[in-house]
Order: sequence, then C-alpha cells, then structure tokens
Amino acid sequence: MPVEVLEIAQKELLDFKGTGISVMEISHRSAEFSEVLENAEANLRSLMKIPSNYKVLFLQGGASSQFAMVPLNLFKNSNKADFINTGNWSKKAIAEAKRYGEINVIASSEDKTFSYIPEIRKDMFDPQADYVHITTNNTIYGTVFPKLPDTGPVPIAADMSSNILGQEYDVSRFGVIYAGAQKNIGPSGMAVVIVREDLIGNAKEFTPVMFNYQTHADAGSRYNTPPCFGIYMAGLVFEWVLKLGGVSAMEEINREKASLLYDFLDNSKAFNGTVAASDRSIMNVPFVLPTDELNQKFIKEAAQNGLKTLKGHRSVGGMRASIYNAMPREGVVKLVDFMKKFELENSRI
Amino acid sequence: MPVEVLEIAQKELLDFKGTGISVMEISHRSAEFSEVLENAEANLRSLMKIPSNYKVLFLQGGASSQFAMVPLNLFKNSNKADFINTGNWSKKAIAEAKRYGEINVIASSEDKTFSYIPEIRKDMFDPQADYVHITTNNTIYGTVFPKLPDTGPVPIAADMSSNILGQEYDVSRFGVIYAGAQKNIGPSGMAVVIVREDLIGNAKEFTPVMFNYQTHADAGSRYNTPPCFGIYMAGLVFEWVLKLGGVSAMEEINREKASLLYDFLDNSKAFNGTVAASDRSIMNVPFVLPTDELNQKFIKEAAQNGLKTLKGHRSVGGMRASIYNAMPREGVVKLVDFMKKFELENSRI
Repeated sequence: MPVEVLEIAQKELLDFKGTGISVMEISHRSAEFSEVLENAEANLRSLMKIPSNYKVLFLQGGASSQFAMVPLNLFKNSNKADFINTGNWSKKAIAEAKRYGEINVIASSEDKTFSYIPEIRKDMFDPQADYVHITTNNTIYGTVFPKLPDTGPVPIAADMSSNILGQEYDVSRFGVIYAGAQKNIGPSGMAVVIVREDLIGNAKEFTPVMFNYQTHADAGSRYNTPPCFGIYMAGLVFEWVLKLGGVSAMEEINREKASLLYDFLDNSKAFNGTVAASDRSIMNVPFVLPTDELNQKFIKEAAQNGLKTLKGHRSVGGMRASIYNAMPREGVVKLVDFMKKFELENSRI
Repeated sequence: MPVEVLEIAQKELLDFKGTGISVMEISHRSAEFSEVLENAEANLRSLMKIPSNYKVLFLQGGASSQFAMVPLNLFKNSNKADFINTGNWSKKAIAEAKRYGEINVIASSEDKTFSYIPEIRKDMFDPQADYVHITTNNTIYGTVFPKLPDTGPVPIAADMSSNILGQEYDVSRFGVIYAGAQKNIGPSGMAVVIVREDLIGNAKEFTPVMFNYQTHADAGSRYNTPPCFGIYMAGLVFEWVLKLGGVSAMEEINREKASLLYDFLDNSKAFNGTVAASDRSIMNVPFVLPTDELNQKFIKEAAQNGLKTLKGHRSVGGMRASIYNAMPREGVVKLVDFMKKFELENSRI
C-alpha cells in the first residue's frame, strides 16, 4: 500500500470525516458510506476508462471465488470454455471451471516452468465457446501477455489480480475482468469484478445467491454488508493513482522501475532473469544466481539489509522482486544496488 | 468497535510490531501473520470454550454466504432440514437453503411481526433432518432465544451474527455456529465459522471450492489470501474481551446495559418496548412512541444530540438501540437520559 494512503487511513481511523466514528463502524446503508462506494467506483471507471455497459462490483472472496463465479455465470450456451494455462493461478482456475463445464486448454507454457507466454493464433479458439480465460500477469513466474489474444466474438475472462492498474488495458476487449485487491488495489479480502452487462443474468440454477453476479449488480455491491474498510482503502488508492496521472502514468513509472532491474539482469554475469524477454512482467521480476547456495545466501543477506520477501515461489526457486504500484522507484534502486554489491563481493561466481 | 481497539490499530497501522510495514502488507504466509491468526483462533477458543473437535474458520462473504454454505455442506443423508423462522435473516437463510434440499419451517413468529420466539417442543423436530437452523438473536426485531431448543441428535446450525461474544453459549450444543464479523467481532467483510469436525467433508458435488468447509479447514483459513486486516482486528477485539473478563463478564455488562433500557421502557408512559418480555435481546432493543410522528421527532432530536442510527428497520418502524459489546454503559445512560427528557418535554403524550 502506498505510504500516503496508509497515512490518510491512520489519521481518519477513529473519526471518519467528522462523523466521530471509524469508517469500520459507519453503516453500509449510510449516506457517508454511499459516497465512499460511489466515489471509488467513479474513480475506478475513470482510471480504467470502463465503458458504461460494464458493471463494477466490489465483492468478497478474492480471485479464488471468481474461479467458480466466472464459469457459474458465463456458461450459457455450449458450456465450453477455452483456457490458456500460464501458471499456478491459471491451473486453479481451470480445475474449478472443469467442475461446471467442458474446458479446453488450448495453449500452455507448463513445459518450460511457465517461463513464457505461449503463441496464440485466432484459429486455436473454439468459436462456440462461452468464454476464453487468461491470466494477464503471472505473479509467480513473472510473465505477462505481451498482447491480448484475438478471440473474435468470444468474450475474454481475465484474472488481472497482479497487474490491474499497473498497466493500461482496453476494458472493451474483455467480458469479465477480476482481481483480488491485495496487489494493486487495497487490503486483502476483497475482489473487484468488472463485467459486461450482457453476461449477467445467466447463472446456473444451483449457483449460491452470493456467487451470482446479478445479485451484486442489482444491489450495487450492497446485497449484504460489503467489506467497507476495504472499499474505503481501495478508494484512497484510486485517488492516489489519479493524482499520479492515472494508469498510463503508473505504467510508465512501472516500466521504468522494471527496466532498472531487467537492464541489470541482462548485463550481470551472476544474476539471470528467468523469463523470455518478450513476455517479461513489469510487476514481478524473478531471477536466479548460478547455484541454489548463492540464492539462499542472497535472500538471507538481502533480508539483513531490509530487502525482504525476495524469496521466489517454491515451484521456481530463486528470487522474485514484486514491484507493484506502491513500490517506489527508490526501493528498486536500492535492490539493484544491493545486487551489484552482492555480485562484486561474490566475484568468484 | 471498542475505542481501545481502534487506538491500537491506529498506532500500528504503518508499522506492525516493528516490521516497518502495515499489517495490510505482510504476507499471509509470513510468520508474523501466522502468529496473528493463531492467537486470534486460540483466544476465540478460550473465550467461547470451543471443544477440540470443532474447527474455527475465518472466512469471507459474511453470514449471507453461510446461508448457502450450511446446506451445501450439511445436507448429507435425508437432504432435509428444520428451520425456525424468527425474522428477516431466518427468511433469507430459508430461501437459500430451499434451493438445495427440503426445508420445513417448524415454527415461526411472523404472525406477530417476529416480536417473540415461538414455543418449541422436541417432538416438533424431524429426527431424520440433517440439521436444525436457528437465528439466536434477531437484530431487526430484538428477540433472542431464551434457551436453545432440544433437537436430540440433530445438529443445530446457528446464525449468531448479532450476539456472538455478547452472551455465553455452550458450543458443544451446536453443529455449526456462524457469524458475520461486523457486530461483535470486527470490521465487515469477514465471517467466523465454528464447525464440528464430523460435519466437514460431505459437501455437495457442485459446491464451489471456496464454499466447502473442508477447503478452509484443511488450509487453516489460508486456502487463499484471507482478510488479513479483519483477522488482525478480530484478534484485537478478542484480547479486549479477554481483558474485560471474558464472555461471562461481557454478558453481565450487556445485561446491565439492556436492563437500563428495559426498566425505563417498562415504566415509561410514552415509550414502549415491542418484544415479549421473555424473549428480549440484550443486543438490540426496539421501542416505539404512540405515534409515528413522535417516532420521527424522537429520531431527529436524538440525532441532533449525537444519538445516531436509532431508526428502526423499515419492516418494524419506530426505533432500535443496538447496544453491542463495544457500546459503553455511558452510551446507554445517555440514551435513557435523553428518552426521559423527551418524555417530559412531550408530556402531552
């Protein structure tokens, strides 16, 4: 979370805008909370240029709930969907969707530990499918779709958890965008769903009321008590991104941050990036040293220097720098400086 | 939320226990967060004397998600359940459960606007039912079950959203207890579920992974990123209740707070309670004046005196004082004083 945002939250924690109570205590039916929610939605619409035929929903249950909600709501005609498998989150989405319809994995990069985005041609898609599912940015493996696939009239459902608001997307190219809040939006425990209106209203008969997009679209995300504090925090983050110049400005900052790391990795004799150059994420940068022993040494010494959570996921090993929106440029500079120093000190490598 | 709890949260908001980052930013897989979660669970177990054959789950989606999760997980043999209908939340739970099995409403107080708890005899229950569902405390109508029904071997599933930790219950008498966090536990956007282990593992085949108790029981509430901030706040609230002497002490305080209001209502010529004396809630106290005009006048003048959110639910009208754990005795005294003053000033009534 951006420090500026946390500071506002801290200041207002016991007295939300002169109400004398915490934003955690105001009723979700109050005028005060309505304003919080409406501002958050309006700012997100402005940031992502969301067309008016899309609903914006603030839900609970994270992206993991969307792994079920997408098939439960989008299966309608053929009960078939095409998936592109680009990592652990894709796999989880596939496993859950398979329980509700016929899933075809039309491309996968599992053969090389998800270190690239597979080549996609339009003729690979089933024109009868109810939707195509992609994970735009793959947190663990550090890949990002270099361009959106052309799926013709079939709507794209995208898990955008780890790069929403980090780079620009044309929302009109999607049927559904969903994102767990905890990377670029706000505290964990909330998901943002952006869904084209014509895809709402076809939920399978046995879908729990809380898993039906219609429920939340009709109720303006207030069917039940919403995660008020999370929505409030998200609203503060949206204002912060707006102040920085919006998503295009954010993307520019993020590209510059990422290039500091990638340029170093490309020129280092010791450190290596693990991802195909064309598919490199600007949010998650995985890298390795020549031996696992050196990886461990690096992670340990980095932590001692205040550079924490650099350990890569157990499925890839090595290191991963997550440089989400809230990570300032100085944080990346500090990391690169430390990597340079480590390389020098361990020059026998 | 108790002011003491909010003050701790405020202090720690940008630096959680010397980590230099917010509790909203620490990884849910970190040692620091594990400690938060484990302490919260241990303290809740201690507060409610939860037997070891029960799992404690911190979930997302509020009580509304439990309206589906309970039938999806508890229907096993007969696919039948008995419900006692004591208000709006019972009705919502009934409507959702009906979609997954045969629901028998064996008693209801809807005939008198849910102003009492219906008489229950053991022979009213179907011994073949998979469970019996009750709402222990009814927020809108201000009723509480004066004692738990004897359902024999059939497990009770209880929505305890509005009086969990407000009064003592023998957990071993329940199969499942669930509660939205936003009354007595913490910020909205979280639910606590206490479920007997033998009731886990029988979810219907089409149950979303996130709606299966087994998923969360196996993963210790960390199948996906949990609502970390909510769990942290709940943990602070649990510590606060422990410091006050636990649930029995809390119940004593609550009974005293409620009696201040009920004693006044019983002796007032103008104000009247709306609930049968035997079934009065110690959390929610609905009351009325002789005319709707006076109700409106009271609500308006109360708000001008800092006594807000006293408006009753539209289905009952009048007023409702919600005096959850976090409401200090002085708040109730202030309300009663204002009611006395209002009665005097409007003595023609």
